Amino acid sequence: MTSFSRPSGRSADQLRDVRIERAFTCHAEGSVLVSFGNTRVLCTASIENRVPGFLRGKGEGWVTAEYGMLPRATHTRTDREAARGKQGGRTLEIQRLIGRSLRACVDRNALGERTITLDCDVLQADGGTRTAAITGAYVALVDAVNTLMARKELKRNPIIGAVAAVSVGVYRGTPVLDLDYAEDSDCDTDMNVVMNDGGGFIELQGTAEGHAFRRDELNELLALAEKGIGELLAAQQAALGA
Amino acid sequence: MTSFSRPSGRSADQLRDVRIERAFTCHAEGSVLVSFGNTRVLCTASIENRVPGFLRGKGEGWVTAEYGMLPRATHTRTDREAARGKQGGRTLEIQRLIGRSLRACVDRNALGERTITLDCDVLQADGGTRTAAITGAYVALVDAVNTLMARKELKRNPIIGAVAAVSVGVYRGTPVLDLDYAEDSDCDTDMNVVMNDGGGFIELQGTAEGHAFRRDELNELLALAEKGIGELLAAQQAALGA
Amino acid sequence: MTSFSRPSGRSADQLRDVRIERAFTCHAEGSVLVSFGNTRVLCTASIENRVPGFLRGKGEGWVTAEYGMLPRATHTRTDREAARGKQGGRTLEIQRLIGRSLRACVDRNALGERTITLDCDVLQADGGTRTAAITGAYVALVDAVNTLMARKELKRNPIIGAVAAVSVGVYRGTPVLDLDYAEDSDCDTDMNVVMNDGGGFIELQGTAEGHAFRRDELNELLALAEKGIGELLAAQQAALGA
Amino acid sequence: MTSFSRPSGRSADQLRDVRIERAFTCHAEGSVLVSFGNTRVLCTASIENRVPGFLRGKGEGWVTAEYGMLPRATHTRTDREAARGKQGGRTLEIQRLIGRSLRACVDRNALGERTITLDCDVLQADGGTRTAAITGAYVALVDAVNTLMARKELKRNPIIGAVAAVSVGVYRGTPVLDLDYAEDSDCDTDMNVVMNDGGGFIELQGTAEGHAFRRDELNELLALAEKGIGELLAAQQAALGA
Amino acid sequence: MTSFSRPSGRSADQLRDVRIERAFTCHAEGSVLVSFGNTRVLCTASIENRVPGFLRGKGEGWVTAEYGMLPRATHTRTDREAARGKQGGRTLEIQRLIGRSLRACVDRNALGERTITLDCDVLQADGGTRTAAITGAYVALVDAVNTLMARKELKRNPIIGAVAAVSVGVYRGTPVLDLDYAEDSDCDTDMNVVMNDGGGFIELQGTAEGHAFRRDELNELLALAEKGIGELLAAQQAALGA
Amino acid sequence: MTSFSRPSGRSADQLRDVRIERAFTCHAEGSVLVSFGNTRVLCTASIENRVPGFLRGKGEGWVTAEYGMLPRATHTRTDREAARGKQGGRTLEIQRLIGRSLRACVDRNALGERTITLDCDVLQADGGTRTAAITGAYVALVDAVNTLMARKELKRNPIIGAVAAVSVGVYRGTPVLDLDYAEDSDCDTDMNVVMNDGGGFIELQGTAEGHAFRRDELNELLALAEKGIGELLAAQQAALGA
Repeated sequence: MTSFSRPSGRSADQLRDVRIERAFTCHAEGSVLVSFGNTRVLCTASIENRVPGFLRGKGEGWVTAEYGMLPRATHTRTDREAARGKQGGRTLEIQRLIGRSLRACVDRNALGERTITLDCDVLQADGGTRTAAITGAYVALVDAVNTLMARKELKRNPIIGAVAAVSVGVYRGTPVLDLDYAEDSDCDTDMNVVMNDGGGFIELQGTAEGHAFRRDELNELLALAEKGIGELLAAQQAALGA
Repeated sequence: MTSFSRPSGRSADQLRDVRIERAFTCHAEGSVLVSFGNTRVLCTASIENRVPGFLRGKGEGWVTAEYGMLPRATHTRTDREAARGKQGGRTLEIQRLIGRSLRACVDRNALGERTITLDCDVLQADGGTRTAAITGAYVALVDAVNTLMARKELKRNPIIGAVAAVSVGVYRGTPVLDLDYAEDSDCDTDMNVVMNDGGGFIELQGTAEGHAFRRDELNELLALAEKGIGELLAAQQAALGA
Repeated sequence: MTSFSRPSGRSADQLRDVRIERAFTCHAEGSVLVSFGNTRVLCTASIENRVPGFLRGKGEGWVTAEYGMLPRATHTRTDREAARGKQGGRTLEIQRLIGRSLRACVDRNALGERTITLDCDVLQADGGTRTAAITGAYVALVDAVNTLMARKELKRNPIIGAVAAVSVGVYRGTPVLDLDYAEDSDCDTDMNVVMNDGGGFIELQGTAEGHAFRRDELNELLALAEKGIGELLAAQQAALGA
Repeated sequence: MTSFSRPSGRSADQLRDVRIERAFTCHAEGSVLVSFGNTRVLCTASIENRVPGFLRGKGEGWVTAEYGMLPRATHTRTDREAARGKQGGRTLEIQRLIGRSLRACVDRNALGERTITLDCDVLQADGGTRTAAITGAYVALVDAVNTLMARKELKRNPIIGAVAAVSVGVYRGTPVLDLDYAEDSDCDTDMNVVMNDGGGFIELQGTAEGHAFRRDELNELLALAEKGIGELLAAQQAALGA
Repeated sequence: MTSFSRPSGRSADQLRDVRIERAFTCHAEGSVLVSFGNTRVLCTASIENRVPGFLRGKGEGWVTAEYGMLPRATHTRTDREAARGKQGGRTLEIQRLIGRSLRACVDRNALGERTITLDCDVLQADGGTRTAAITGAYVALVDAVNTLMARKELKRNPIIGAVAAVSVGVYRGTPVLDLDYAEDSDCDTDMNVVMNDGGGFIELQGTAEGHAFRRDELNELLALAEKGIGELLAAQQAALGA
Repeated sequence: MTSFSRPSGRSADQLRDVRIERAFTCHAEGSVLVSFGNTRVLCTASIENRVPGFLRGKGEGWVTAEYGMLPRATHTRTDREAARGKQGGRTLEIQRLIGRSLRACVDRNALGERTITLDCDVLQADGGTRTAAITGAYVALVDAVNTLMARKELKRNPIIGAVAAVSVGVYRGTPVLDLDYAEDSDCDTDMNVVMNDGGGFIELQGTAEGHAFRRDELNELLALAEKGIGELLAAQQAALGA
């Protein structure tokens, strides 16, 4: 294992540089540009005073997400989903994941009959766009909720915890934290892990098209994820404290 | 925990009755009706002598899946996706999962430039349709490959293992195996686990919209899944041996 | 004509084996698996307490149908309509036919402001799927109406007759009853006939892409259809009496 | 029956005024404005030197049809199908009928690898648009074929007969010919009949949502249709002879 | 410039023959067939007693337009937009232009909560379909409004001016009026001009994919447009006075 | 005019602050973030070695554009076009305009059989997004072409001029340059002007839903546009020289 090295030169348990810029655009109630190295995702939180049909009249709020990738966020140009006339399966899967993850830290009764939509648009992709999106969207969500609190529209704060996400995977036999594109495309096993600040798992999505992973590998991967998410939760708090 | 009971009366680590009927319909190269209790999914495997564009000319095969639900497979009628003009996010997510899972047990070079499509159509839904689909589709896949072997179209058998799937979740505080609809709709945490016959994990999809699960709960859930998948792998072999 | 023989060995005026299994699935108010030989169609009837916009507030009910074919119900795999993003012309034509046929045996005022949707999904196709669908959907419809009657939700029974359907055609110069796929694909003239138990014609759809049929051939075809439909009406009653 | 009268004052076996104007527009190889009373349909025939995929390389041609209705061809405005993003079931059903009907009078081998598309667009609707469309499209088709003959592109004439169509129905108890909108919307039984000049039936589409028709009524309706189609075939020849 | 000649033999500032036939079809409140030479567009105006959501309850009316081209209005057949499942960019652009142009001559408060939809369907295309459509749609709009006035449904006439449109362009170095197809397809610069009867500009859409036009060319083009539109406004009045 | 003032405090002929940042993202051959005040558009240029069907084999290249708006680029959230399943008319109109404008400065023979796609995605909108997009896309296009030149893939430079765009309009009676959102939404007349560095007009799109503009107003507006575009062309050159 002495010869092991990651394309980026990072150590196995090292995150990429994380940056969280708040108020990146001016109209949204929350607007965060999150960077995990070269992966950059613009996350906006928009408040609307209505809820989907299935919640109408129940006094509960809703938190949902949409995900998109600019056509040239990627190495080669990807077709624009709006032009193709539909969102692909990967997009829908990711935006469902982001929505579920963020709902896990919200008391929807405290939110009242409002919808907060988290739009996560990838400006530049280098692996891990969904985990960056969740991590950044949390900050945008808190900013949007704080807007409502400042306007005295809420009786109590509906944010009941923090949520962050990171990917882990087995790269050339070694479990590593926060895969970039070079690693991701050369890696049979990867897992996206979403956790809250109580150390609980919100989402766990592991995939092994090539090499099936054993229980001990799983344990190593989860330990890496716990470490990384701890650092991401700290970065979120630092950004919010700024 | 003495008072704990499942709606079905099963013990916590007990699967529903599993049935695997081969040759359920006559045209497909593999056709399996799989039942996990009241969940019934028709899985057909269709062989075509062509591959998607990205594989053309590489000598490799492809295995893919499509998933559907008959409109009245469910308690109340669901809109027909063909009439609505698109497949929903849940459908796309499930069929991508089935496809990845089955590809994990196939040597695509041995398959040659062929596509095997696994159509998994839910005739009756009572929870766990995606895990039943994977478990049944594996048998249909083997039948389709055996058709090719019998026709001497393949030099070696491309099936390199067996794959089965089951759900686990925390129901009223207790980890249980193979959730039915009554449990699934009253359960904050559930996980779909896909494993191979070497004890490796192929896919792990855990979700906790309500209660985030701790590491020890995760371990209990995985242990239940391992037990259940062992029994499902045996049921597949029994069906194939028949 | 001594040398005439049908691929199946049936006589010219002989139906295929007809089976009508009620309660094939458990959620729908009516659920029938109908088989005309190897053609097998699952017909479910679903009751909803609302009507389409154009009937709202008129005190009348509605009966409608949707039709689908599982991708591998056919000899070679057919694209899934949900994946292609629209229902084809053939599908729409058939489901409109089924809907009109079933409405012909229902007193929509007696039904009240309810919709009964008949979903006819072909599990296995061997010719005559639309006629099998109509014949089976009638039984599912009666079961659904009986559910409403048993719940005392209706003042009087809205079923005002029985409806069944069969195909006829000229196969190699001879008029025959109930074409299977081998005959259908080798036959220039075919007609789908829907009749009620009073001997009246509900729908008549004759097509002659190749050989135009003469008045006397039409008469022979109608006589065959009348015979076949008599037997199908009897099979429906037998199934319902069970 | 002495008191019987049609809204238009026509006798029971009387067609509306039929007009067939050739060369109505200038670009198409055949362009016919056909009027059945106030129903006016523009039928153009377009020749293209290619065939659909399933015919490529077989030396055979194809004849197909598309049907449309201008939004305000009707009493109240109908949504534009192009704006709604799909053709409705009625449209698809009608254009399939027109295509099959016209193919019945063409020797596709004589046509060679060409497609003739018949676009039938309703400028003004007053009942019977599909039968007017078939009747007019035949003339446009002949004009297009004559263009090819004049250019010496065909060895022999692929037109092997004439085709015309008319509707019949039971209006207030009396079988009548060529229903207009006032009759059509007040009539339980109607049938569209397509015949060739040899007296053969090409298509027969009878529908009885209200009153099921008996065999003797069917016979009366067919007799009316035969009479009307005779007159329409004569009108076509007169127009072509002009 | 002595050698300059237009394909049609017209002088540089000469319109094609303009014809405006009212009441071309019978159902619409306004129905005009407008011809600019061989370009023929059917413009119907339909009144509906409702407005789009964003205007509901404001006491204002709406005027909007839809545009279509019959598949064989053009030299070679164009795909039917309804069959392709969407309206193209050119179509949407043109119908937005027609709608804005007509709204410029309507007092929407005087119209009350009604929508007038102008359907402009090109029967035959030879260049300038959008300008012919605007010019014809104005007459259809006036006819529809006069219908409302005659029914005493309006307190005052909402028509506050007249609107007409024409194209101009630089053809082989010479500015010309009212381009036909032969000129349009051989011309780098063209401009569509919409004006009212007060000499004001409503819309100006100039495009120069090839040769960018200079300020003096622009002035010449606008002078030609003013002349042409004067004649078109006169033709509209003549038609309405008829 | 003493009392006239713009919401932003700018003088009538003053542009907003213009910023042009090159290499804003890392994958595209050209990537420019252009700001006209608070309007910010990310313009990427992507090179692909293929051309659309209608140009194949002609040795010519193609330049095209796509336009999008992030859902919360605007004051209130706009539906995502990818989720709605189609691009709106405004979007299509704008991307067609951008494409035509950029093609006007490219020698497509010199480009060879390549397509350059300009994706213009609005991150933040405050009026004038299409003019900012054109101005920024020009710089991205030059960067992409320079990439090809540096790789020695082109014999000569296909860029044959510079192109920039600005809006002008009549705001409360006064012609002003470069409308921001506050002006745009309170302004009856506005015009988008695209010019090249030779002083020629490429596109002119003037719209007057409210007050029709007179010839002298048009002249004033064009003079303002010429001034503004001169400054924008200088800003482009400064950015490219950096």
